[in-house]
Amino acid sequence: MTSIINVNLPQQSYEIAIAPGILDQLGQYLADLNLGKKVLVVSNPTIFKHHGERAIASLKAAGFEVASYSLPPGERYKSLNSIQKLYDIALENRLERSSTMVALGGGVVGDMTGFAAATWLRGINVVQVPTTLLAMVDSSIGGKTGVNHPQGKNLIGAFHQPRLVLIDPEVLKTLPVREFRAGMAEVIKYGVIWDAELFSQMEASKNLNQLRYIKPELIDSILTRSCQAKADVVGKDEKEAGLRAILNYGHTIGHAVESLTNYRLITHGEGVAIGMVAAGQIAANLGLWQQEDTERQNALIQKAGLPTKLPDGVDIEAIIEALQLDKKVKAGKVRFILPTQIGVVTITDDVPSETIREVLRAM
Amino acid sequence: MTSIINVNLPQQSYEIAIAPGILDQLGQYLADLNLGKKVLVVSNPTIFKHHGERAIASLKAAGFEVASYSLPPGERYKSLNSIQKLYDIALENRLERSSTMVALGGGVVGDMTGFAAATWLRGINVVQVPTTLLAMVDSSIGGKTGVNHPQGKNLIGAFHQPRLVLIDPEVLKTLPVREFRAGMAEVIKYGVIWDAELFSQMEASKNLNQLRYIKPELIDSILTRSCQAKADVVGKDEKEAGLRAILNYGHTIGHAVESLTNYRLITHGEGVAIGMVAAGQIAANLGLWQQEDTERQNALIQKAGLPTKLPDGVDIEAIIEALQLDKKVKAGKVRFILPTQIGVVTITDDVPSETIREVLRAM
Repeated sequence: MTSIINVNLPQQSYEIAIAPGILDQLGQYLADLNLGKKVLVVSNPTIFKHHGERAIASLKAAGFEVASYSLPPGERYKSLNSIQKLYDIALENRLERSSTMVALGGGVVGDMTGFAAATWLRGINVVQVPTTLLAMVDSSIGGKTGVNHPQGKNLIGAFHQPRLVLIDPEVLKTLPVREFRAGMAEVIKYGVIWDAELFSQMEASKNLNQLRYIKPELIDSILTRSCQAKADVVGKDEKEAGLRAILNYGHTIGHAVESLTNYRLITHGEGVAIGMVAAGQIAANLGLWQQEDTERQNALIQKAGLPTKLPDGVDIEAIIEALQLDKKVKAGKVRFILPTQIGVVTITDDVPSETIREVLRAM
Repeated sequence: MTSIINVNLPQQSYEIAIAPGILDQLGQYLADLNLGKKVLVVSNPTIFKHHGERAIASLKAAGFEVASYSLPPGERYKSLNSIQKLYDIALENRLERSSTMVALGGGVVGDMTGFAAATWLRGINVVQVPTTLLAMVDSSIGGKTGVNHPQGKNLIGAFHQPRLVLIDPEVLKTLPVREFRAGMAEVIKYGVIWDAELFSQMEASKNLNQLRYIKPELIDSILTRSCQAKADVVGKDEKEAGLRAILNYGHTIGHAVESLTNYRLITHGEGVAIGMVAAGQIAANLGLWQQEDTERQNALIQKAGLPTKLPDGVDIEAIIEALQLDKKVKAGKVRFILPTQIGVVTITDDVPSETIREVLRAM
């Protein structure tokens, strides 16, 4: 059975379609959207090896002219140089305004393909086919695209909504366990900020740290409820003018820690996990939510095999300094998303540096 | 007296404000829009020398923190490398999402600053202060931004609407005559595609080829009517889904000729002039408009001191080949904008290559 979630936006709405084996229907979905004949599939070598043939076969069967390109893997190639390479490929294959880039991969592939599509010929179609849990529940939905500046993650980017998001849970079977856990960080985030029922379902599960130990019904719930949460929030605030900022729960300190460890030591999800532990404790110390809820959150994070401590050697003053570079800084003030109960958060730029220091020192 | 023209768009509307001396009110206009405190003025060395101080003084007087940067001049620096430099400057000056880039210059400065603003932190404010006639009546309005790929003009870009366009006709006094004429090509374009009255007013003027020989009332009419034409068209079709394509009248062949002469031999406006002569004659040969109207158009182009012949040494087959690279190609077919009477055009992708060859051979 296919779950369809609608992302409703003023200028361009689209569907998130979730079903086991749906990758084989990619071509048919594109044909139903009446997209132009030329398609460029962008992936990375590992993912392309696992799933590239199937994606391309499906597109060709539906009558598309298909070219493909594999980006070098990893956050450190998420640069403007790689985008220039994508532009060259787009030019060689004579992509037109009606053409489509298909991002087949995780968050890095999705963000970069989205940015290239946003800026080639002032915007061509992009379809997201996320292959990691993180990309499925988060980065493939909502139109944020970007690449890193040497001094900061995703500082260069654009909003560019996909025409379709196609999620095949079966591809998760080939996902390394550490990446699965990284995705679980975002799923736990939705539980804390938006969906107390999802939070409870995960609390009730004996295991959260490996796909094969989690019941299929819970996987299904994790995917559909997370995508629905993201679609709800993005539908209410496409360009992050207000509400959408709540999706950054755990990301403020998370990004700083990722950046200070050069995006190599920890995954994005691990950064978010650390950031949620910090933000939760800040909220508790400021009296915004119960210490007990902080501990429920942290237990879930641990059950998912995610870190709750700062990595060794990260300097606390360097984190405070790095927060100033965050895209969400406004008039020099760092904006924090803080929980008030499970499923509800508030946005504030009024957190004393001393409280941040105190919480980080205890981690 | 200040003329205000509204550009009405679904997501973000803005004003074009036209008045002699209005550059001194730049800071006040930004303050009225409640833009953030940090402003980066982007210009080029020549323009900055003439007008930079005034712009900065006005911004500072209104309470803004101002940084400035001069791009190296000329189309050949309209590259992703220059954009990377702008990103570095944005980072050094800690621009935030509420910050503003002010593009003080001609089309190259406006397009590049617009693109940098579109893609820094996924989009910050941009205010256009055009200093050439071409930028005033065309490129500063409508949100098209872009940089060149080594193999094609503006292949990289995004739509990003300005928050304001501020036009001070007095700055035209320092504009080199060849650049003034290049702007007149776009003004004549508006006469042909949209505003028969503007066309007649220009026909009635004894002189069109130098600012100082043109009556102030006609300059006023040229600016307000051209901006109104652009605002009308963009307001009806922001993202070039249909109608907006008519603004490309003369640009299809014009771009090809510019590209084949490496953007050095002729100005953009001269390319457009040549392209209008070609498109007009194609329309006449296809029986779409009167030969007499073609000649009226060409007489206006000549009176404005613009070329009506292909530059020496440009190969006609190379033009035909280059047309295939145009952003407006759809399913391999080149789209042409062709006049049917003064003030009215039609869009067609049904022009036989033989007709194009025939017309170009006669030029």
